[in-house]
Formats: sequence, structure tokens, C-alpha cells
Amino acid sequence: MNSHTEYLTFNTEDHREYIDITGEVEEAVRKSDISEGMVLVSAMHITAGVYVNDAESGIIRDIDEWLGRLAPEGVDYHHHRTGESNGDAHLKSLLIHHEVILPVTEGSLDLGPWQQVYYAEFDGQRKKRVIIKVMGE
Amino acid sequence: MNSHTEYLTFNTEDHREYIDITGEVEEAVRKSDISEGMVLVSAMHITAGVYVNDAESGIIRDIDEWLGRLAPEGVDYHHHRTGESNGDAHLKSLLIHHEVILPVTEGSLDLGPWQQVYYAEFDGQRKKRVIIKVMGE
Amino acid sequence: MNSHTEYLTFNTEDHREYIDITGEVEEAVRKSDISEGMVLVSAMHITAGVYVNDAESGIIRDIDEWLGRLAPEGVDYHHHRTGESNGDAHLKSLLIHHEVILPVTEGSLDLGPWQQVYYAEFDGQRKKRVIIKVMGE
Repeated sequence: MNSHTEYLTFNTEDHREYIDITGEVEEAVRKSDISEGMVLVSAMHITAGVYVNDAESGIIRDIDEWLGRLAPEGVDYHHHRTGESNGDAHLKSLLIHHEVILPVTEGSLDLGPWQQVYYAEFDGQRKKRVIIKVMGE
Repeated sequence: MNSHTEYLTFNTEDHREYIDITGEVEEAVRKSDISEGMVLVSAMHITAGVYVNDAESGIIRDIDEWLGRLAPEGVDYHHHRTGESNGDAHLKSLLIHHEVILPVTEGSLDLGPWQQVYYAEFDGQRKKRVIIKVMGE
Repeated sequence: MNSHTEYLTFNTEDHREYIDITGEVEEAVRKSDISEGMVLVSAMHITAGVYVNDAESGIIRDIDEWLGRLAPEGVDYHHHRTGESNGDAHLKSLLIHHEVILPVTEGSLDLGPWQQVYYAEFDGQRKKRVIIKVMGE
């Protein structure tokens, strides 16, 4: 088994952002020289996520508003007694999930026609990282 | 490392359907001749999901009604300005997640007694695909 | 490719519990002698989950209360016609997800500074299992 590991760094301008990283993941697969296997793409933080969905600005707004309804900001979370104010970002990370595994077939990401990989920042404006690990033969 | 890849195709009669694909995944593991490793089972669409839970008709109705409460149809989603009407199916896919990784031990799926693998269709009546990739030794 | 498989057993005192298993997963990685690869950590039950988040007692209470709002107990779920009373635990398992994949780099879990692995029990006071499978080179 071969493997190839990279780290992406983000420091978003906005508090919440949704960033298409499909190109970066494709590039890591190309560099790995792996033709059959998979890629793990995982946020290294508990207030961010990685998901697969559509690169359409309307659905991205829908996702943001939906997460805001199911895991709202401005609630008096127990977590805030530690001095933090990002309880909602933890819950959003759990809801969207922090990692995906993508198949690699014949040296490329084996995704469906509309599937794009997104980094979802829920508590930005600071340095955050994502690990990309390609494994296979 | 060895690998074996298959694609399942669905074209559901209903708009939403929940289909037990455990047998198909088991069969792919058997064909792969892999004894230790894992299987990735991943929907290739942004309006479908793959999950592990119970093959009991009551809980399947509960899951469907619950997804309908948390990610309702009939909302005026921003995504619908593109002409689409399936915003809820995107959100349901994110909530249930689009892929699972299952362990393979001694040549079989190493699942607990009630764990079954389901394909969840949230915008059907068209051709959709799932990738099954077995990897290991 | 090498692999190493272990099973953890739980029998919680409380109906719902959140148990930090990061040490157990680290120890399995150490025993596996794998330096590059990944670990699958997966609940073998349909009423439990595995997730990655913060080891802070306030956020754990927040997670528990949040899951209680999104997938409440005491609802007359269809599933209960089978004689069960744990419909909410199934939905909580789907929401939090039953498995995670963690990267292994240079022989250790390659997690961010606050990432801890949790077993989430939603219907305890009985014997339950988690599989840990390390794979790589």
C-alpha cells in the first residue's frame, strides 16, 4: 500500500464559509500516483466540517440557513461557561460531519457528476487545517 | 493492497425510497477475495444517501418522517431559483450522509447483529448510482 | 497492507453516555505497528454512535440536550409497535453517525489539538461493542 499526505490551511475572512476544495483533493490524488484506493479528507478541528454536495450558490445559502435553524447561534450553551462562544459551531460540525472518504479509480476521484468536496468553516477568522490522505496501490 | 470496484444502479418507482443493499455489499466482498480490510459504499449523487441501521419497516417510516421534519419539502429554498425543486433532498443527503465505511474481517462484513446497509433515495424516479469499493489484503 | 482489529465492550450505567475512547484507539494504533494509514472506529449497534469532538463537559451536555431536541424521546414512533421503546436512539445514531475514519501518520493518530474520539451510547445498560480496525503500512 502506498500513501500520500497533505495539509491544507485556511484562514477565512468570514465567521462561516463554504470553500470548494475538489481541485486540491484531485491534485493530491494526482501527486500520490495511486490508481486504485481512496482519499480521506478530514477537518482537524471541532468547529469545522467536510462534506460532499453541489457547487451551486443557492444550495450553499440553504445549507448555511438550515444549519442555523438546527444548531442556532446565540443560545446560552453550557460550553460558553468556559469563556467560549462557539457552541453552535461544534453542533454544526457534528451535523455536517468532519470527514469524508472518496473513492479513487484509475487515478482520479470517482465522483458523480455533481459531487464536489467542501470545507465548511463554522468558526473562522483564525488558522485552521484539513488533512488529505490518499491510500492505495 | 487489493481492490475490487462495483457500481449499483437504481431507478426507484417512488420519489423517496429506502433500499436494503446489504446483500449486494456482501456479494462484492465475496467477489473481491479480500479477507482483511474495508468497503466504501458511497452514493454518487447529492440527493441520495447511504446509512447503516435496522431493517424494520416501522423505523424506516420513522426515519422518513423525521427527515421530513428536519429537512422539509415544500420550502422556498434558494436552490429552487435554478429551476430545481429538490432542495430538501440535498439537505436530507447531508443529514443522513452519503457514504459509509464497513469493516471486512475473515472475508465477511464485520457488522453487529442488527446492522444493515441502506441506500436512501431522496429524489428518485431517475437513474442513480452507488459505488462499492472493497480494499484490503 | 497490514491490519489490526480490536473490539471494545461497553455496558454503561446510564441510558445515555458519552465515553472518550481516544486512548483505546491510540493504543490499538501502537499495537498495530502501522505507521501510515488509517483507523476505522465503528459502533456495531444501531442505537449508538462514534464521533470526534471536544472533551469538555459543557459541550457534552450541549450535545446530549441538542440530540434530545432533534430526535426526542417519548414520541410514539412507528418502531415502538414492535415492542421497542428506543426509536429516538436510532435517530440519534443516524444524526451523530455510527463510525469515523481517523488518519494515522508516523505511527500516531493524526488529530487536531482538540479532537477526541467519543463513543456515544443512546440505549445503554446492556452489552454493546465497537470495532477498531487499523489498516496501512
